[in-house]
Parts: sequence; structure tokens; C-alpha cells
Amino acid sequence: MWGHQKLNNFGKVASSIFGLTLLLCFGAENMLQAQNSDLAVMPLPAHWQRGAGAFVVDRSIGVEFEGYTEPRLERARERFLERLSGETGILIWPTMGNKPKIFIHTKGASAEVQKLGEDESYHLKVTPDEVQLDAPNPLGVLRGLQTLLQLVQITPDGFVVPAVEIEDGPRFPWRGLMIDSGRHFMPLEVIKRSLNGMEAVKLNVFHWHLSEDQGFRVESLKHPLLTKDGSDGLYYTQAQIREVIAYARDRGIRVIPEFDMPCHTTAWFASYPQLASGKGPYHIMREWGVADSGMDPTRESTYVFLDSFIAEMAALFPDAYFHIGGDECNGKEWDANVAIQNFKREHKMKDNAELQAYFTARVQKIVAKHGKIMEGWDEVLQPGTPKDVVIQSWRGQESLATAARGGYRGLLSFGYYIDLNQPASQHYAVDPLGAGAATLSAAEKTRILGGEATMWAEYVTPENIDSRIWPRTAAIAERLWSPQDVRDVESMYYRMAVVSEKLEYLGIQPRAVTRRMLRRMTGLEDPAELMVLASVVQPPEGYERGTYGNDDSLMPLNRLIDAVPPESEAARQFMLIAKRIATGSASEEDWKQARQSLKLWRDNDAQLQPILLRSKLTVELIPLSTNLRQVAEMGLKALDQLQSRRAMTEAERGEALAFLKKSEKPQAVLVNMIVPAVEVLVQAIQK
Amino acid sequence: MWGHQKLNNFGKVASSIFGLTLLLCFGAENMLQAQNSDLAVMPLPAHWQRGAGAFVVDRSIGVEFEGYTEPRLERARERFLERLSGETGILIWPTMGNKPKIFIHTKGASAEVQKLGEDESYHLKVTPDEVQLDAPNPLGVLRGLQTLLQLVQITPDGFVVPAVEIEDGPRFPWRGLMIDSGRHFMPLEVIKRSLNGMEAVKLNVFHWHLSEDQGFRVESLKHPLLTKDGSDGLYYTQAQIREVIAYARDRGIRVIPEFDMPCHTTAWFASYPQLASGKGPYHIMREWGVADSGMDPTRESTYVFLDSFIAEMAALFPDAYFHIGGDECNGKEWDANVAIQNFKREHKMKDNAELQAYFTARVQKIVAKHGKIMEGWDEVLQPGTPKDVVIQSWRGQESLATAARGGYRGLLSFGYYIDLNQPASQHYAVDPLGAGAATLSAAEKTRILGGEATMWAEYVTPENIDSRIWPRTAAIAERLWSPQDVRDVESMYYRMAVVSEKLEYLGIQPRAVTRRMLRRMTGLEDPAELMVLASVVQPPEGYERGTYGNDDSLMPLNRLIDAVPPESEAARQFMLIAKRIATGSASEEDWKQARQSLKLWRDNDAQLQPILLRSKLTVELIPLSTNLRQVAEMGLKALDQLQSRRAMTEAERGEALAFLKKSEKPQAVLVNMIVPAVEVLVQAIQK
Repeated sequence: MWGHQKLNNFGKVASSIFGLTLLLCFGAENMLQAQNSDLAVMPLPAHWQRGAGAFVVDRSIGVEFEGYTEPRLERARERFLERLSGETGILIWPTMGNKPKIFIHTKGASAEVQKLGEDESYHLKVTPDEVQLDAPNPLGVLRGLQTLLQLVQITPDGFVVPAVEIEDGPRFPWRGLMIDSGRHFMPLEVIKRSLNGMEAVKLNVFHWHLSEDQGFRVESLKHPLLTKDGSDGLYYTQAQIREVIAYARDRGIRVIPEFDMPCHTTAWFASYPQLASGKGPYHIMREWGVADSGMDPTRESTYVFLDSFIAEMAALFPDAYFHIGGDECNGKEWDANVAIQNFKREHKMKDNAELQAYFTARVQKIVAKHGKIMEGWDEVLQPGTPKDVVIQSWRGQESLATAARGGYRGLLSFGYYIDLNQPASQHYAVDPLGAGAATLSAAEKTRILGGEATMWAEYVTPENIDSRIWPRTAAIAERLWSPQDVRDVESMYYRMAVVSEKLEYLGIQPRAVTRRMLRRMTGLEDPAELMVLASVVQPPEGYERGTYGNDDSLMPLNRLIDAVPPESEAARQFMLIAKRIATGSASEEDWKQARQSLKLWRDNDAQLQPILLRSKLTVELIPLSTNLRQVAEMGLKALDQLQSRRAMTEAERGEALAFLKKSEKPQAVLVNMIVPAVEVLVQAIQK
Repeated sequence: MWGHQKLNNFGKVASSIFGLTLLLCFGAENMLQAQNSDLAVMPLPAHWQRGAGAFVVDRSIGVEFEGYTEPRLERARERFLERLSGETGILIWPTMGNKPKIFIHTKGASAEVQKLGEDESYHLKVTPDEVQLDAPNPLGVLRGLQTLLQLVQITPDGFVVPAVEIEDGPRFPWRGLMIDSGRHFMPLEVIKRSLNGMEAVKLNVFHWHLSEDQGFRVESLKHPLLTKDGSDGLYYTQAQIREVIAYARDRGIRVIPEFDMPCHTTAWFASYPQLASGKGPYHIMREWGVADSGMDPTRESTYVFLDSFIAEMAALFPDAYFHIGGDECNGKEWDANVAIQNFKREHKMKDNAELQAYFTARVQKIVAKHGKIMEGWDEVLQPGTPKDVVIQSWRGQESLATAARGGYRGLLSFGYYIDLNQPASQHYAVDPLGAGAATLSAAEKTRILGGEATMWAEYVTPENIDSRIWPRTAAIAERLWSPQDVRDVESMYYRMAVVSEKLEYLGIQPRAVTRRMLRRMTGLEDPAELMVLASVVQPPEGYERGTYGNDDSLMPLNRLIDAVPPESEAARQFMLIAKRIATGSASEEDWKQARQSLKLWRDNDAQLQPILLRSKLTVELIPLSTNLRQVAEMGLKALDQLQSRRAMTEAERGEALAFLKKSEKPQAVLVNMIVPAVEVLVQAIQK
């Protein structure tokens, strides 16, 4: 009997990103183990049913392939055993000649170059005696092995996989992560560990944003100046690109390059100014923001260059799709160029959108000539755009729905901008078939291929990028894989914590990076007091990071805003407690924890202040720490009043709320995240 | 005015490996910054003198070479800027075309293949305006750049290098780290990050133990079965070996291979049983300990094989020295082999030592024939051993002195066995020219080349090896580099903490690994309570790890003993406080901290017990946690009595000391390290 099961009931949930806060605020009861009826897997499988007993992981485990096999599967087994070994500490390797206990049956091959829409389903059955994984092709095997790894847990009997039967497959065929290597170059190891993480949460498209105003990042043998003058020496060789593609293929991930055009192209112009619409001279752009520059769509030489360039890149990247960007042309250079103005008049183009449409149509023909299907941002959709062009929407489901109604396929990135510091729950709530797309017909809905998380790189470096991508991207991955009705936010946060833990073994260790950055900021071996502050603040949503410092691509990203995760788990937990207190459903433990936490935050300030004075990177945090103390004091007072059922005058309440309102404002571009919870407490006090 | 300066006075010292303990026990005042007159550099330079002001590190820094240059120096600059950038978060890269502020003058080249005894000295002058580094050759430049990196610190003015002038060079020419890749295979990344760490603390010899009873780890093209049947598939290809050698050379490190013979050779026999003295059959050995097997020294075919093998390896490893091991032959197979017994009689050999001497002499000729100087453990020194053979001593300075008196050169490893879980201070106290070598003549002393830390790998895996090598090896590195009178233990611990911090940027992150292992053990996202226990326990000195579990090379090393560092910094700090209390020199803060710590340790047990029950890897810790509570209770009682100056009866004292004696015993192969400090407190109570 199969049935999709929703998870509602968690004993204890993972409670903090910082150990310290955890101990002092919430105890350490958050077992990272599947409890009760929930399956600690993310994305949650489509169908599953628990069995009796558990399969014990020990050093005698062997993995056997049945049916179809290929070298990629051999490598998958090697990686599987290596991870199993890494995550348990039990030494197992493929060469040990162990007796098979895990049987993998693969029916047949998948496409040589992974295709959109290939079957990724699998069937996994775990009993105390053995594990059976069946899949139509290697892609399903890869997915099933990740599920199996996530199921491993420590128990009094050792490491086990609880008996379970799973029937699983994705909801959407296009589940992507975009990484912007243009604005800040991301070395190969960042790309590789991101691919590791993608495989773990069953994402299948790596969209690689490879050129920007701030840098051109791929070696071109035909146009070598692109990287010579346009990259600061920071680019991928073609051998490295091939390495990434092979690495991704091994993990069931397609690689789609994006060369953004006709705008976001200043770095191209550093070496090839003849492509530009303005006079130049052009250099790699250091500032952020939308540049005025753009390719000249009116000159044939532009298309000759692009034909040669796209031919080279189309051969380098085997995927059927080719992304040409197309976003954010402000048209200023076009407007300032008399020849372009004349061209527009001659061709009766009424605005720059029509000019860009002309450019896009020309480029689309080149892309098609070289055997690829074009993909672009919303802007590329214009009257006459060929029907096979795929639209990636930063504008939203409405835009996507319009495209789908017009016969175009599309995918959603609106709502999945992981650079904007939104909580995982916000991303999780966004559905490619929600909002404006909900009313599409069944046929139109099939044109919505899925979505992509986008990691724009203005304010991330190789050092902190992991904490921006993970673990929140796991929530987006679940939205794109699991059935639409998997929506329980608390379950998501619980399982995300489990998965996050396992990502550590793939080289994704944002917590360790946060700690190290705080040590660097303070010069302290253990910056415990700064950790307390760090655990309850977060960057404001949006692009506020740029509002101080030298806001350009060389600005050091070494401040607290760069070190903390985009979502304060301690504050999220505290809000849950505050709400229970406010609604009268709080336990004694809730009251105790609320008080303990507030005391910690209040008392921390006196310890932290002298430390903050000692480093140029921390002096700016002095008012923030003071504010945390003040808000915590107010929270404690509110608790007292709530507990003693003393009323508050309107004047007192007004004063308190005004202070909290003021406290909501970012300081050192960081938001004190306990403010909303204290506001909940204050509002709950009797009138 | 130059003068070697000793460091005695530290404001606050680094106080704990675990943040938690730190906050709760010792505050977080341990600024990782040079304070007062000390230079937070390790090894401490031979001569140095502070200047006025500081050189500010910002994104405009350029590095220029003057005089001799070579590609290795270019790469060193790249690594230097990358690390400076990594450690500060300030984006600097060589391609930015910055104005030079760091000037490096290199007089000439060093040897193409790095030689024993090459000049490694350098002169470093830092002023507020610029940095000047001068060295006779690239080796000195490499050393000086590491000093410069260590000097960078965060201040209210940002990241700076305080003005200083340093004249530095090593005391010993041979400063090594041995890694045993035989017993547990260590992947390339482990080797590389170890080389990173070696460069950081100015070690210059990587001694690579490449064959063991448990595995043969180098691809041989002439004898490919060596790895086919003798390695479980875990070995280095020749391309990887070359990669490591080049990597090491870039860091001023020689690579000396060790192929241990005639014993520790079971893995060879798995594929080439004809080399053995016994009948076999032979397989890779899984157990630990001294094997009975050994090569047959009486058959010419043995030397034919070795000639061919050593020829291949001598060509692969360019260093002038070649280590043939030679240790720990128990002779049992020789004794059981009639042909060998006959051979001994024919050649009038009175014991197996003579037989081994015959073998060693034969091998030495082969090694010499292939252009190498032989090196071996104490055992290879026999009457007639050629004078250029280098003796590596596991027996001690007396053995080394005997060799030196006989005209042999040698290096010390006795006292530097970092696998034995000794405190850094113990290693630090061992001097190659101390003990039995102190009475050598000046000429004889020049034959003592230095020393090597030895990382034997019975009880380390790639996961936890960093915490065994680092940071304690830095103390050994200082012993071998800095002047003999640099001996202040508190200064050493303080500086070791600073260096330890910087090793994190080289990929050496034992703290993060400890945390992850504790999470794995408990299944908790934040195992704070287990951290408390972990912070005050340590493995007993010696090889006790093997006394439980399946004691073999496949035994999972995933228990608390494998996760904790070999030295409890929290317990070390607590002992310092206890001694101050016992001698009446304690401050009020000392009393407060002692009480806080003891309370934490006492109260932790109740929280931890239910957690320990939930995992097979933690149930064994139940008595240890109880014991920590009981000892802490006793400590608190002692504090009460000391503070109130109440006397203790002899009976009470006897009972207390008996309990403490019992508590000293390892539980789950872990020692409760607060016991000695509590004993100090109890002993201090009035009679």
C-alpha cells in the first residue's frame, strides 16, 4: 500500500547553527535521526513505507551490479562506499572483495549526453538482510544511492539503515543551480563541491554563468584575448571545463553554459572593443550594477565574431541547451550611438526592446546552426522567438505562464535567488506551478520544466559561497523533486538540518568557515562572545551588503555580514517559542529556554564590547551588540510581565514597540533577528 | 644590536581546543596577537628586534623580486599572496599589477635537487612603508615568507605586520616529518596538506614510509604485482609521487622514501613469496605488531630483485638519501628455515643480528650503486657499516652519540613519536644534543643532523591524522630550528596556538574534524555535552588504542579516543590554575575559573548520560562521564576546604587520593585529565 506521507510531528528539531547557542539556549536534544514516522531524507521521496528492523552497516558490505553496467556506475559505487566509509568511519573499499549485500539492478543505459526529461526514477528496498536498488537507467541508480546514504543513522546497534521501501521519481525534469563565476571567480574545487551537494539533493542541471562585466571566465582558443584582458588571469581552461562536465555527468548533472549577451559584456570589450556600441576604452568593470555598455547589434562583424565563438563553445559544452542570458540592457550606449539610432530608424524599430529582439533572433539562429537549443532570461521572449527557446524567468510565475500559454517552455528562478538572504521557508513556498502559473491548463503546465536556484556572486567569494548556497538550496531542490503537497515547513527545517550535516562530508562546511571568519575578525582562538552575537543576526534581504565599504569586486568580504549564514536558526527557534508563549501553549521548558536565551544575549554585551574595540573588522558591531542587550532586556521584562500577568499601559507599550521598530533597522548591515520575537512577547502582554 | 630574546611574559594564553569549554571555563581573552615583547612566530627566529609602527596589509600590495629569480619563486609569490588573501579576506592576486611594497632579494640559486645542509637563512625587515626580505637563495626566501605570514595580525588599524627586523637561520640542517602511508594509506591530499604545514613551520625533510606488512604503496613498473596484490588498490602512482616531489620542492622540502627491509615486508610477499624466508602463503597483514616474516638474506635472487627495485625507486626519488628501514626483525622465520640456518653456520654468523648486518651491507652496496646514500634505523649500524650511512634513532640520544663517536651521522626520532599521544611539552624538551649526546665533542656534534617527528599510522586515518601531527609537530620543528636556549614552555604553547590557527588556512583543521566526529558519534547536530567531556580527556600515552575493538588495520577509528586531540588544553590550563591555588599564588579570577570549570564538568554528566545511551559509539563513555562528575565534585569540595582553610583528616585524604588513583585509570581507553589537578588541590589541603 503506497501513499505519500506528510511529516508533521517532530520530537525535537535541530536548533542552532552555533554549538554555543545550542547548549545554552536550547539544550542538545536535537537528535539528527529519523524519529517517529518521518524519513530524514531530502528531497522527500514521492512514496515510501517503513518496514521492520534495520540493515546494519559494517565493514563486510559489498555492492553488486546486476543488469546493465558501465564505468560511471563503477565510479558511483566507489564514491558511494567512500562516502559511507567517510560518514561512519567504517573502513570499506571496493577492492576488499566483500560479499554483496547491496544489489543494484540497472535496466539499461541512459543517453550518452544527459538529456532533459530522462527517467530518474528508482525503487529502493531496505530489509535487515539486504538492500535492493532498481532503476531503469544509471540516473535512477545515482538518485537512489543518495537516498540510501541519507538514510544511514547512528543507533545503539551501530550505523543502520531502517527498513523501508521507496518508490521515487522527480516532479520536474529541470532542477538546477546557477553559479555566477563571472563576478567573483570560483575555483574548480568550489564548483566540484557544489556539484557534490547538487547530487546529494538530486539536482540535475548546473547552470554556469561564465561571463560578466567583471570577468570572462572560459579560455577561448579562437579568441584568446577574452581571458587575457578580461579575466585578471582568473578563468577556466578548456581542460578544466571538460573535467567539470565529466565530473557532473558522473553525478547525473547536465552542464549548461551561459554567456550573457548583448549586455553584461564589458569584460569582452576589454579585449574586443569592436564588439561594443560605445567608444570605450573598456576595462574589466570593478563596480557592481547594470553597466551602460552592450554589444553593437547592428554590425555584421558582431555576428561573425559570435558565430565563431559560439561554434567553439557549442563544441566544448555537450549539452543540448545553450544560455545566452539577455538580461538587463539599459540601452544607454545604443541611444548614444548615431549609427545604431540610424539602424533602428531604417528597420522601423520603435524601441531598444525591438533592437534586442533583432539581436536575439540573430543569435538564436547561430546557436541553432551549431546544434543547440537557445535559453535566455525573460527578456529574450519577443514576438517571433522560435518555439523551442527556453525561458528562464527572474520575473515570476506570471511571466512564465505567459510564455507557456504562448507555447514556450520555461523554468522559474524568481523566488530562488539564494543571494538575497531570504529564509529557506520563503524559497520553499515558491512553486513553479504556483501563483500566476496555477491556472495553466494541464498541457501548458508540462511546459514548466522546473526551476533553478541562482547564486549571483556580487557578495560571495570562494570562502563564504557554501553558506549562501547551502543548506537553503536543499529546500528548493525538494520543491522541484518532491510531490507538490510536501509543504510542511517544520519538517523541511528538520530534514534540512540532517542533510546539512551530511553535506559536511562532501567538503561543504559553512559552519567551520563561519567560525574561522570570526576568529580572523577578532584574532581570538575562540571568539565565543562574537559567536553569540553572530548567531542571532543576519544580513537584510536584498543587496544591502554593498551599501558600505568600497563597493566593488575587490572589496574584502571579511565582515560579520559575510560570515553569518543568511538565516539565523537560533532566532527562528526563539520565534517559535515566543509564539507559543504568546498563545499560551508554551511548556515549562519553553519558558526556561526563552529566559536563558534572553539572559545570554543580554549578558553577552559586557563581555563582547572590549573585544570589539580591538579589531578594525569588529568596531562597527558595537551598537549592534548594545542593541542586542537592550532588546534582550526588554524581552526579559516582557516575560516577567507575562508570567505575573501584569498589564502594560498603552504608553508603555507604545514606547516599547517604538524602540523595537527602531531596533529592526540594520546596523553594520546586520539585522537583530530576535526583535520580531520580542515584539510578539510585548504584544501578548495584557492591556 | 642583536640578541636572542626569550619570551616569558604572556598576558593571556590560548586556553582551549573547544570553544565551549573556553567560554565557560577560561573566558575568551586569549587574543591571538603578539602582545608585549613576544613575537608570535614558530619556530622562534634566532635573532629579532622590534621596530616602531606597523606595515598595513591592504589590497594594493605588490611583491617584487630582485636579483636571482626562478619559476619556483614566482609560484612562492602566488602562494604567499593567496595565503595572505585567505588569512585576511583581502582580495589580492599577482595579476593585479599592484605597486610593489614587499621586496624580495635573492642572491643566487639553490641546488636543483635540494641538498642536506643548504643555506636556509634569511633577513627580514618590516617597516611601516615596506617589507624587505633578503636571502642567499630561494630556500631562505621560502622560510622568510612563512615568518612574514605568521606576523600578520588583526588590530584596530586592520591587518598589519608590526615593524621588526629578523635575522634567522636553522640550528639543524635535517628537520623532518615521517608519515607512514603503509599501515593506513594516506591519500594525496593528506600528504599535500602535511607538506603545507611543514613549510609553515620550516621543516625541510618529508620522510615517506611507503611499505609495510599492511601495504605496499608505490607503483612499480618493473614489479607491478607489488601493488596489485600488496596494496588493496591503495597506492601512489609514479606520476603522483613525482607530483608530491615537485610540490615538496616548491616548499623547500626534500622527499626521502623509506622501503623497510628485510622485515615489515609481508605486503611484498603477497605477490613475491620467493623473497620471503618462510613458506607462506602470504597476504597483506591485517593485524598490528611485529610480523615473523622477513626477506631471505641468503638467496642471491633476493638481491637481484632488490637491485632492480631500488634502481627504479632511486630514479623516481631524486633525493641523495634512500631509507631502507631495517627495524624490528624478530628472526622467527629465519630460525625456522633450515637453509638459512645452514647459511649462517657456513658464514660463521653467531646470531640473526649478524645475518641482518650481512643483508644490510649487501643492500647498502646496491643503494650506493644507484647513486644514493643509505639511511636506516638504529639496527643498520653494525661493525663495517660504511661511514656515510645515516642512522635514524628510535632508541635515543645515547644510541645516536655512539654512532657519532663512531663517525656516523644521525638524526633523532626518539622522543618525537607523535603517535604516542604525548604532550607537546614532552617533545619540546627532547633535544638531539641533549641527554646522552650532550657530552659529544664539537666535531662529533656536527654529525647530529637534526631530527624527525614520526607519524606511525596504526591508529590514524586520513580523517584524524591532522590532529595527531598538528599542532604538536610545530613544537618539534621549533626544537630543531630555533636556538637551543629557546625553551620557555608557556611561550611555546602560546605561539603554538597562534600557528595552529594559521594552519587552518592550509587545510589542516583538526578542530573541525573533532567536532564532526563527535556529531557522527552522537547523531547530534551539536554534541555540546560530549564536547565538554571530550575537552578534558585524552588517549593514554603509548599504543593503548589497540586494546579494544577489532584490533587490526580495518578497525573503524571512529570513537572518542580517535576524535580528541592527544593533549587536553583545557586540562593543561586547569592544572596551571590548580598549581597556583595550591601554592597560594592564585588570583580571584583563578578561583572563579576553577569553580566554574569544575561545576561545568560536574553538571555535564546528567545532561550527557541519556545522549550516551543512544549510540553504539558512545555507550562505553558512560563510566567516564560519571567519573568526570565524581572527580569534579571532589575538586569542588577541595576548593571549599582550601578557601575556608579547613583541615582534612589523614583518613579523608587517604580515601580521596585512593579514589583519584583509581580515577587515573583509562576508561574506554581515555584518561580523565583533570584528575592530576584535583590531586594537587587535595594535597594542598591543610593537615
